[in-house]
Amino acid sequence: RMSEKLDKNRTILLRKRHVGPSCKIFFSHDPLKIVKAKGQYMYDEKGQRYLDCINNVAHVGHCHPDVVKAGAEQTELETLTLLLEGKKATFLALCYLSGLSYSEANDLALRLARHFTGHRDVITLDNAYHGHVSSLIDISPYKHHQLPDAERNPYVHVAPSPDVYRGKYRADHPDAATAYADEVRDIIDRAHERGGKIAAFIAESLQSCGGQVVPPVGYFQQVAAHVRRAGGVVIADEVQVGFGRVGSHFWAFQLQGDDFVPDIVTMGKPMGNGHPLSCVVATPEVAEAFASCGMEYFNTFGGNPVSCAIGLAVLDVMEKEDLQGNAARVGRHLTRLLAEQKQKHPLIGDVSVLLKGRGLFVGVELVKDRVTLAPATAEAQEVINRLKEEKILLSADGPHRNVLKFKPPLCFTAQDADLAVEKIDLVLTGASPAPFAQ
Amino acid sequence: RMSEKLDKNRTILLRKRHVGPSCKIFFSHDPLKIVKAKGQYMYDEKGQRYLDCINNVAHVGHCHPDVVKAGAEQTELETLTLLLEGKKATFLALCYLSGLSYSEANDLALRLARHFTGHRDVITLDNAYHGHVSSLIDISPYKHHQLPDAERNPYVHVAPSPDVYRGKYRADHPDAATAYADEVRDIIDRAHERGGKIAAFIAESLQSCGGQVVPPVGYFQQVAAHVRRAGGVVIADEVQVGFGRVGSHFWAFQLQGDDFVPDIVTMGKPMGNGHPLSCVVATPEVAEAFASCGMEYFNTFGGNPVSCAIGLAVLDVMEKEDLQGNAARVGRHLTRLLAEQKQKHPLIGDVSVLLKGRGLFVGVELVKDRVTLAPATAEAQEVINRLKEEKILLSADGPHRNVLKFKPPLCFTAQDADLAVEKIDLVLTGASPAPFAQ
Repeated sequence: RMSEKLDKNRTILLRKRHVGPSCKIFFSHDPLKIVKAKGQYMYDEKGQRYLDCINNVAHVGHCHPDVVKAGAEQTELETLTLLLEGKKATFLALCYLSGLSYSEANDLALRLARHFTGHRDVITLDNAYHGHVSSLIDISPYKHHQLPDAERNPYVHVAPSPDVYRGKYRADHPDAATAYADEVRDIIDRAHERGGKIAAFIAESLQSCGGQVVPPVGYFQQVAAHVRRAGGVVIADEVQVGFGRVGSHFWAFQLQGDDFVPDIVTMGKPMGNGHPLSCVVATPEVAEAFASCGMEYFNTFGGNPVSCAIGLAVLDVMEKEDLQGNAARVGRHLTRLLAEQKQKHPLIGDVSVLLKGRGLFVGVELVKDRVTLAPATAEAQEVINRLKEEKILLSADGPHRNVLKFKPPLCFTAQDADLAVEKIDLVLTGASPAPFAQ
Repeated sequence: RMSEKLDKNRTILLRKRHVGPSCKIFFSHDPLKIVKAKGQYMYDEKGQRYLDCINNVAHVGHCHPDVVKAGAEQTELETLTLLLEGKKATFLALCYLSGLSYSEANDLALRLARHFTGHRDVITLDNAYHGHVSSLIDISPYKHHQLPDAERNPYVHVAPSPDVYRGKYRADHPDAATAYADEVRDIIDRAHERGGKIAAFIAESLQSCGGQVVPPVGYFQQVAAHVRRAGGVVIADEVQVGFGRVGSHFWAFQLQGDDFVPDIVTMGKPMGNGHPLSCVVATPEVAEAFASCGMEYFNTFGGNPVSCAIGLAVLDVMEKEDLQGNAARVGRHLTRLLAEQKQKHPLIGDVSVLLKGRGLFVGVELVKDRVTLAPATAEAQEVINRLKEEKILLSADGPHRNVLKFKPPLCFTAQDADLAVEKIDLVLTGASPAPFAQ
């Protein structure tokens, strides 16, 4: 697959089909197809050599052997278009390869939303984390909460997290999805009263840092209706939860049902398996609006061939090793084992599939009291430290840092799940008689 | 060098010495030193295996052979601390490895400045380009100019570019450095009158996209005095011009003399030779202020070992092949050849060392008239298209897109310079009798 060559016209065609029109290329009236480079020279598909006076990024020379050897081997070509063609199977829309970090992807998503709508206000969820550049810290209460005197961005509105375990409306509510969505509707109404206009609602399809939150089915559909009626768009952040992790579906937003499709989807981390690679997918309408604003999207590393080669390899491995199926199977097994632990250890508040996770994305709520749900924060810290002594790496997260958070590589096996839960059992049992103290 | 192993205590020591305190690590009371990883397992320096339930980034398994093969081979360990130790020779201060893109680096620099000063206003130069995320588009008039109805950020002030070729004060001015610096002083005064407080002045040490602008010596010193008196800091953006490109010095800001040192320096592109790697260096005071604000700096890819291995290799190649010396020698030769062309072709407005570039960072101003300096924009486009036919890749930039912009890889030779200038001569001669038309 990787070794197949595309002719130049097909490369141009695929690029037009998949790459957002704001991503300009050099010599657009007659583009060069550069297939390799060495030192100060670049070579086109016919082997014609060009002297490169432009490329200050290849500082010590293109593909310097020492640099290649030290880190990255750009083994093949055509990777951007092939990667996008490969992704087509799972998602049909126009892509901006935003290049590197999920922060670049989410920042670009906000810009796309604001250009498309001409509006400025953004609604985000409480405890959300969307990235570490300025524009995203603004919409990340998870980061805000660390700053006692955080200056709030007046265009950002925070809706309650649709957490049916410890949120405002819980599992015993007759229609938590509607109740949480109505909160968003009320925020929109209040923003309108003050002259605001909604550009976007942004949310992780399942909140990760926010405490492994699974929104009730129907929530995103109703939110999308409210937001679109206000002229805004819906952005699904799949950076942590996409790419088959939830097992039953490739994208976590699909858990809401076939009647929900976001306007913009952002993806990152898993796409490159640790190598920096991120992407923004938008409806053609949204992408066109950005293109027609006249500002091109330029990113030195956007669609770079090494990253794209890695992205392709990740998609291939996913398929070849049926990792989505594995996430579904092992996730079920893990959740069942954890549910058994809940019978044994009062410290475990909840691990249920509906409330705390799907596939290989599972949270274990540790509570001091199953009625008050008082978070067992120090205990969670102690558990992860003791697990480390048992050679198990697990983290605790959520607004109260009391949720044990499983999000392992997707090659995690049933035996791994057995081992991890056995050690959790051991740690909780050893700690059982007296309450933990840090 | 790369194969030498550090013991864990030395790793911790070097990390403390060079990495900003806001960059937290897992298990900070007793950190793990992970030296390799495979599938769902990580291994410490003693070979002890840990089951990894955390790492959703290594989506298909750590170091999956297909992924490694496709793109990156993490050949060695210890790379972050060794990279920073290596850089110490050239720059002494506390680093934040911001991870990937120069945009992340510049955004982080603004955040550092705002935390340190408690102020919000930023002064940037006209035609500046500092990156493509929202906060940086705000301070990049190069991008603003593309948007007719750009919403200006009220906290951003634009000072004239210190361009002594076609700017407000020119080479014939008795003291252009002071005149341009006084403009910054006046902006500060006006901001103060309206209740603003200056957090930072940011500038590329030489403007690149802005048209290869060399600020007159003494400019940054005087600007720094005005800005610091107002409680602000000075950020030097070395993303395009650092790492030995200017030949005489490693950093372009050093061209101003030993009496100028910025408070924050950002670096990117050349540091990774095309591989994503960027860095923010700040004085210890600035770094400490950020640490004490309580918000940690987290970046999934910050200081990732592949990038750092590449960064180390780049520094080694720079030294082994004396690329800074080469930039000085070949840059002098290239500038001399281009100056000869200026005698022959009236279209060339200027190429002088003092005005348009240093080392292997050289601009050739194309003008319709050497007195009015009317920019020869269409002609510049035609020249780069004809050069492409001659297999020479060169770009045109600057606010009028009329500056031919040399910024090749640093392995560029005198023969390459001969060839490029010979072809420029050919193109300009062929075009000579009649003025160009696009």
